Parts: sequence; C-alpha cells; structure tokens
Amino acid sequence: MHHKKIGILGGGQLGKMLCQDASKLGLSLHILEKDNSFPAYSICSQFTFGDFKNYDDVYNFGKDKDVITVEIEAVNTKALHDLQTAGKEVYPQPEVLDIIKDKGLQKQFYADHNFPTSDFHLYKDVDDLKSNIKNGKLKYPFVQKSRTDGYDGQGVAVIKNETDLPKLIDAPCLSEDLVDIEKEISVIVARSTTGELKAFPVVEMEFHPTANLVEYLFAPSNIPTAKQKEALDIAISLTEKLGIVGLLAVELFLTKDGEILINEVAPRPHNSGHQTIEGNITSQYEQHIRAITGMPLGDTAATGASVMVNLLGEVDSIGPTEYHNIKDCLKVSGAHLHLYGKAMSKPYRKMGHATIVAETLEEAVKKATYIKNTLSIKGDGKAS
Amino acid sequence: MHHKKIGILGGGQLGKMLCQDASKLGLSLHILEKDNSFPAYSICSQFTFGDFKNYDDVYNFGKDKDVITVEIEAVNTKALHDLQTAGKEVYPQPEVLDIIKDKGLQKQFYADHNFPTSDFHLYKDVDDLKSNIKNGKLKYPFVQKSRTDGYDGQGVAVIKNETDLPKLIDAPCLSEDLVDIEKEISVIVARSTTGELKAFPVVEMEFHPTANLVEYLFAPSNIPTAKQKEALDIAISLTEKLGIVGLLAVELFLTKDGEILINEVAPRPHNSGHQTIEGNITSQYEQHIRAITGMPLGDTAATGASVMVNLLGEVDSIGPTEYHNIKDCLKVSGAHLHLYGKAMSKPYRKMGHATIVAETLEEAVKKATYIKNTLSIKGDGKAS
Repeated sequence: MHHKKIGILGGGQLGKMLCQDASKLGLSLHILEKDNSFPAYSICSQFTFGDFKNYDDVYNFGKDKDVITVEIEAVNTKALHDLQTAGKEVYPQPEVLDIIKDKGLQKQFYADHNFPTSDFHLYKDVDDLKSNIKNGKLKYPFVQKSRTDGYDGQGVAVIKNETDLPKLIDAPCLSEDLVDIEKEISVIVARSTTGELKAFPVVEMEFHPTANLVEYLFAPSNIPTAKQKEALDIAISLTEKLGIVGLLAVELFLTKDGEILINEVAPRPHNSGHQTIEGNITSQYEQHIRAITGMPLGDTAATGASVMVNLLGEVDSIGPTEYHNIKDCLKVSGAHLHLYGKAMSKPYRKMGHATIVAETLEEAVKKATYIKNTLSIKGDGKAS
Repeated sequence: MHHKKIGILGGGQLGKMLCQDASKLGLSLHILEKDNSFPAYSICSQFTFGDFKNYDDVYNFGKDKDVITVEIEAVNTKALHDLQTAGKEVYPQPEVLDIIKDKGLQKQFYADHNFPTSDFHLYKDVDDLKSNIKNGKLKYPFVQKSRTDGYDGQGVAVIKNETDLPKLIDAPCLSEDLVDIEKEISVIVARSTTGELKAFPVVEMEFHPTANLVEYLFAPSNIPTAKQKEALDIAISLTEKLGIVGLLAVELFLTKDGEILINEVAPRPHNSGHQTIEGNITSQYEQHIRAITGMPLGDTAATGASVMVNLLGEVDSIGPTEYHNIKDCLKVSGAHLHLYGKAMSKPYRKMGHATIVAETLEEAVKKATYIKNTLSIKGDGKAS
C-alpha cells in the first residue's frame, strides 16, 4: 500500500481524522478542498485547491493518483466515473456514490432489494408534492427530504400539518412516513477491496432538539441484543448488496413497534463513528484506509463504554473562533477533545467533538454532559 | 492556547507524533527540519527548511513564533537563549537543554544535587581518558560516553578490558562505572508552565543486543512496588530540581543490588513513551503539548497492559524503504502499527514501532514477538 498515491475529495474534519490515522500507517494523503481554512489543511502537506463538485478539478486531481476516495458524498461523480474508466481505483465506487448521494435512488434501492425502510414517494419538485397533498395521496404527518445535497439536518423538513407547509423545500424531493421512533441507532460497516467485511458494534444517537444533527452518541447501545443483531444483519447485507468498498455508515430507526428500519446511509467515515478513535481497538478512519488499500480489516471491538458529544458553534454568535473554559474540560479524566480548528464559528456548526471513555456508560454520560455544558465555542460577533 | 504559534525544532518521528496529537487539540505546529524526507513533513503544512543546529536557522524560525519546543536536544541553544531574551516562550528552557545535552554537565548535576547515579569522571578527550587508564585512576570495566551528540547507542562504548580499547570514541567524554543491571526502566514526567507535575507509570525497557537501543518496552513494569515508587520519586524530584517545562524522560537502572540509579534523561517525548498513545489515557505527545501551553495535564493512567516494539531497518540492507509481511501484522488484534514513513531504510534505523495493548502482559508479549519476527522493513539494496 505504501507505493500508492491516495487522494481524498474533501478536507473537512473527516478528512482531517483520516489524515491523522493514515499518517500512523506511514501513508500521506493528498486532499482536494477549496481553501486552506478547512480542518485537514493543517496536517496535510499535499493539499490541492479546487472544488470537489467541479468536473475538471476532480479529474485533474485524480489523474496522478492511484486511489481516490471521499469524505463527503456530494462530489462530482461524473469525473470519478471517468477516472475509474482511466484505470484509477475509486472507492467508494462512483456507481455506489450515485445511488447514495440521491436519497430518492437510495430509498428505491432499499425497496427494490427488500430492505426495511419507511414508505416513501418521489416528487420532481415542491409543486408536485403539494399537488399530492391536494389530491389526497400524501397525508400528514410526513417527512420531506431533498433528494440531493442534504447534510446535518439541512434538506429535511418534518411536516406535521398545514401550518408546517412554509418549511417545505423547493427541490426534487421525497416524502417519507413519519416514523414513531424509539431510538436512532447506527452501524458502520467496512468492506475491503478483497471483499472482507467487518461491522462496528451498534451505537445509539441522540439528536440535538433544534439543530437536527447528532448531539450525543452512546456506545455500546443498550437496545435488546436481538435487535442489535437484526440491525447488524441489515447493515451487513446492505453493504454486500451495494458492493461498496470502504465504509458504509447505516443509520437506522428502532420504532416504538420494535421494527428496525433503515433511515439513510453515508459512504464514508461518519459522525456516529467518531468515538471509535479512542473507544474501539481500530478507529473507523484507520478501517477506511485499510479497506481502500486492500489491507486486512482491524478488530472493531469496543475497549470500554464511550460517549461522544458534538461540540457545536454557539447559536447566538458568528465570527473568528473563540474557545471558552477549555481548561476545565481538559481536566476531565478520560475525556478526549477533538477540536477541528475551524477558523470561523457559526450557529450549530460542528466545531469539534469530545469522546469520553469510561468503565460504565453512566460515568461517561456524566462527564460528557459536563463538557457539553462547560465548553463554549463561539464567534466573536453576534449572529443575526 | 489557540492563539499561540508553536514551533518545533526537528521533524523526526517524535515531531510527527507531536503533530498528530496537537492536531486533535486544534493546534497546528510549525516544524524546522532539513528537508521533506523527514517523517513529520507529510502531516505538517507549515514546514520550514533549515538546520536546527544552525544559529541563524533557529533564530529566524523562532522569531515569529510564540512558543518554541524541541523533539531533539542537540539543537542550537545559543539561538534559543536569544529567543527567550527576546520574549519568546522556550520549553524546555535553553538553560535546561544546556545541562542535558552535555552528558558531563548532566552527571555533574546529579552529583551536585545528590541524585543517585553511577560514579563518573570527565575527560577533555580520548587521550586524557587513556592517560587515566595508564596512571591507574581508571579501571576496567567502564563505560565511555561522548559528552554530546550521542543518540540511539551512538556515542557509547562499553570497555571491559584492553581489547575493547579500539572502540573508544575520540571526543570530550566521561567514564562511568559499569553497572550490574537487573532491569532498565524509565519514567516520563511532565511539568507544565503552571508548575503542575504528573508522571507516567514506570515501564521496563529491553535493549537490542547489538544495536544498543530500546527493542521492547513493557508496561506496566513488574519490578517491586517499592522500587517503582523509588524510581517515580527520583524522577519527580529531578524534574522539579531542573525546573523543566515540558517532558522529562528519565532512564534508570535497577541494579542487581536493588539500587535505583539515574542513567540519563531526555527533555522531550521519548522512545520509552511511545506506548502511551494507545496504552494510557493521555499520550506523552498530548501531555507535552498541554505542558508547554499551560493547559491542565492529562491523566497518565494505563488502560491495560502494553508492549511496544521498535521496528528497525534490517541490518543487511540499505536503500528506498520496502515493507514486507505487513498484512500479517495488521491482522493481529490490538496491534497498533506506527510506520514513520522514512524514505530510506538503513541498518538498525528506527523505521516504526508497534504497540500491542492486551488484557495481560503475556498476551501482549506474544503478539509483539510475532510482529517483530514477521514484519520486515528494509532497503532495496545490500548494506556494505
């Protein structure tokens, strides 16, 4: 693997953490990202400036690499198809990215292959959706999702009744039944170029009440063992059916009725796997590197109980990043702070995370809550 | 700490591992090193080319930094003194570096402050030493050490009798009594700008039979608890007496008579602390960054039993680095491979290390031995 040049599209925090772990294995990654304000810049000596959504930028970046991977799915897959045709190894494969980056195709894939997921319908735009409300085919409540470019709660609207209609997004979209959720869980699976496959244990996610993104993550999950097995089986089958090389992060619902349903997937390292850096024998980042270079996959077992908390930019401020009360947090034993080094803080922006590894989940939760309530990351000005 | 520009003299593997951990805390380090073949280059976007032994290179590098630290002690301390005078924070302090980089002054410091160490004498050169053999003042066996520039077994000669005399090093040097060693142990202590002080648990080192550098490291040590306490007390007192800010790695002997003697110290992260990355709650690298930026020191407790094995370049080869049987090693659960990414392999060159964390030391030893015997790192040509 040491003779391969590996390029990554995207230099956000996921790219940064990929660089950290790749460097341990003696690999140096090349990154394509817009400018030097991105987190991975500071620890990457081979940073190419460009737009991963632009055909030429992606193609030119990839043409002198051996392996090309991504830390975000919203990339120019046309260029990736052409790089693959030109003999480059592209993982995840462009044809898999095409399915996953379009939530409509993603849901259709589940339906076509009998994977459990909530019922859905596709619409070419918001008017199409509205006319389906009018003609009685689409009933309240439902969830609307933009087919592409959704992330961190962007591109999702929960429509409970008529008064929520102004929230509708004007884009090619889908509607989904609003699921009565008991727990949101996640399984990250790795599949290597050799077909070897390993899953990380099931984790539980708790979402931020307003920002609609993961706030806390608990590992291990304490849902019933049979349900964990069901979730693992679904995630593993889906990984095999997609034939993806690299990581597949599978977000699932455990419904109040005890059903396990696939919510959505990401073809890359995922927020629900941050805790693997300190909480599991192998991190998701190292696993991704192993998978795309054809190395044996690492042991995914947890080393203890862990809780991950996302550190978000404070809601009322914007501007150059300021960290407050960091010393108090660094005093907490077993708390591992990851600050992404983003120059600007914005409301709800993911500025870092902390993972607490402890003997019991209860202790880890206590420390995570303390950090969440103590550390303040904000801009130097007032958000409008 | 996020508003300080931190510079490091040296971009070897220690610099690389400092960058990895600093980046987790959202800090980006600046490195001074000769060229881009050094390990830290690949994960550092702020690399300055220059010689850390050269006054101008060090001074110019340091003058726009806020904090300057080192990953090697053989640096130009004159420039560091001047940077300190100019108001820069230099940790470890140049006056401490001056003592430690000269093994003669180091030994004198122990003697002056009643720290236990083997008896020694200083000589201005090899002829001075030889004349002391002739006049009967210096008796066989003894150890000769070059006063400066020794590292990884360079600059040390064990002289058992007359036939060993050709091994003598022609430099300002010291002779030490040859100690009857039961175990070689190490304690790494951190002291922060605030005076806070924390030690890592005692570890045991096993040296390579011919290369005279650490081959295996065992944590925790299984020497008697009272002896561990004695070693910790000595290391902590020495750290306080030196008043160093940053890490002090204290190598000690447990003699066959049950005495604890200081062998030598290093004012920086050390080979005997590599296992802290996965084997302790806080790594020595993060601890160093915390110490020099005035952050609270992290918990140094071990998370399990761990064994570190140095991966050396094969003795019979030299040239561009080749890795053999790496896949077999990546299959070992709990084995963390660190490959430094050195472009050239040379006999006994430190090319990487592996840390194995396991429930028992026995299991960790077994896996470490397997990796040592399996992984082969070598150049593509024959060593002369």
